[in-house]
Amino acid sequence: MKDLASYSAYLETALQTHQIPQQPANLYDPLRYFLQLGGKRLRPMLSLMACKLADSPMEKALQAALAVEYFHNFSLIHDDIMDVAPLRRGQATVHEKWNPNIAILSGDVLLVKAYEQLAAYDPSTFHALFVVFNQTAIEVCEGQQLDMDFEMRTEVSEEEYMEMIRLKTSVLLGCALQMGGIVGGLSQPNTELLYNFGVHLGLAFQIQDDILDLFGESAQVGKQIGGDVLANKKTLLSICAKKAANSEQRLTLQELEGMQDPTLKVEKTKELFNQLGARTYCEQKMAGHHQKALAALDLIETNGSKSELLALAEFLFTRSH
Amino acid sequence: MKDLASYSAYLETALQTHQIPQQPANLYDPLRYFLQLGGKRLRPMLSLMACKLADSPMEKALQAALAVEYFHNFSLIHDDIMDVAPLRRGQATVHEKWNPNIAILSGDVLLVKAYEQLAAYDPSTFHALFVVFNQTAIEVCEGQQLDMDFEMRTEVSEEEYMEMIRLKTSVLLGCALQMGGIVGGLSQPNTELLYNFGVHLGLAFQIQDDILDLFGESAQVGKQIGGDVLANKKTLLSICAKKAANSEQRLTLQELEGMQDPTLKVEKTKELFNQLGARTYCEQKMAGHHQKALAALDLIETNGSKSELLALAEFLFTRSH
Repeated sequence: MKDLASYSAYLETALQTHQIPQQPANLYDPLRYFLQLGGKRLRPMLSLMACKLADSPMEKALQAALAVEYFHNFSLIHDDIMDVAPLRRGQATVHEKWNPNIAILSGDVLLVKAYEQLAAYDPSTFHALFVVFNQTAIEVCEGQQLDMDFEMRTEVSEEEYMEMIRLKTSVLLGCALQMGGIVGGLSQPNTELLYNFGVHLGLAFQIQDDILDLFGESAQVGKQIGGDVLANKKTLLSICAKKAANSEQRLTLQELEGMQDPTLKVEKTKELFNQLGARTYCEQKMAGHHQKALAALDLIETNGSKSELLALAEFLFTRSH
Repeated sequence: MKDLASYSAYLETALQTHQIPQQPANLYDPLRYFLQLGGKRLRPMLSLMACKLADSPMEKALQAALAVEYFHNFSLIHDDIMDVAPLRRGQATVHEKWNPNIAILSGDVLLVKAYEQLAAYDPSTFHALFVVFNQTAIEVCEGQQLDMDFEMRTEVSEEEYMEMIRLKTSVLLGCALQMGGIVGGLSQPNTELLYNFGVHLGLAFQIQDDILDLFGESAQVGKQIGGDVLANKKTLLSICAKKAANSEQRLTLQELEGMQDPTLKVEKTKELFNQLGARTYCEQKMAGHHQKALAALDLIETNGSKSELLALAEFLFTRSH
């Protein structure tokens, strides 16, 4: 997909030149720093592509795209504090490079700056964008809280886990697409289809993440294989494995959680997850959401081309197994 | 001012019955808890009064008033984390009662909920409210950052201090009033006068706070006399005293900062501040902003009555010396 690079370049330029004030330096320097750590810029790209799908120039969606990217970075800055994460994209997190108080306040002002972008549109478009954006912002906070809650629990059902990842990660993809469609002038039913496309794409993507973490090749994934297993993290794989296990297998799963040798722990868990059909189940579930995403995209009525979003949906799954 | 009680009652009912979701409990319980700790509800009251001044029923301004109160509480929840404050209004702060992560995230969602209130208005009113609210939100974050920065510095000028309190506390009073005026249907020049009334009122009020902390009666102030001096906090009093001091007096001020005996420290500082004319200077400065506030109120063209806001402005200064 050669076009991804040109979207990226356009967004990087906009993010670099975009007005972040100079003073107070301790409030705004962290934002400049964090926004330039890079990342895929997937979410703002979705806004631009949705606007083109609506047969409008992508430039119209720039402020909506920036709102989404700012919001995403706000949530990362605050999540990093909560997770006590030292690194983000290989660089020091804001609370590490400055301090937690500065990270809280910089995050706060970035959320406000996200909203500010939306006010660039005419009142009626603005109102429509705001409703989607605000609902999404609430849901992302709820998702983050559920994620923290689940860490403290021994049992989490498949439904609860799916709802958590829907809120924490998928709705923002839906929001990015729907806002691009609104700005581009699509009708409400069509922007809702864009939203559904994004949510199912996000769910499929998150499930893929869970699978690749254990069953991917290290080079594809770009991080250590089995990280989730080593951290005893709840993922769709582990939840489904536990669900399918008989009482003896449950004991084995418990023993594996306490195992010291990392290589053996990952190998044995992989084996048991496979045996319990967890991998196959997750792959089917992922394929199901991927299909639902494509079905929603297919139903959208527009004179614009769907090929870019189709290609992006494919691209996101080429790192697959 | 017997009417204050009826505004209060109206706001308390609205805040109690207002929709804060039940789940996730760790996200929303802290909000219900914090919003019901009480407080003067001064800011939302200003929105209601401004709407009445515009000759409209105060009920029209309820969502604007709630937005301001939610925003204020969001900033308190996050400020309490940054200040490591154990108590707010005599009760445990959110980060103490739950934990800092929950306080960060609950604060975040309360900021989003503040914005959400504004969407209740028609698109054109909403857009006008949003512009004022968003600018104010940015400024309050900037003020909080400056306040933290100033703690780390040895020298802060009078101008810098005044700008900090303008941003941190006064603009939100201006915003509350201007939003009430917008909802009530006043013209832009008149809502800007309401804003100026609020900002000068806020500045006068903050200066009064600084003076009363040292020169008030404990019963009036409701807290220990000389708390700012004991904490070596920068206030308008201390900044003006330092500015007026000769090199010998500067040394004495420095010695006083290190003094162990609290009673003696407060007494001696009081004496020197008086001697340096700091108290008189601050009182004049306070009176100046009070006058500017009243002058702005006087210029507003409306069929509604100004008597309530006038009475409130007086009431705020009856705890005076």
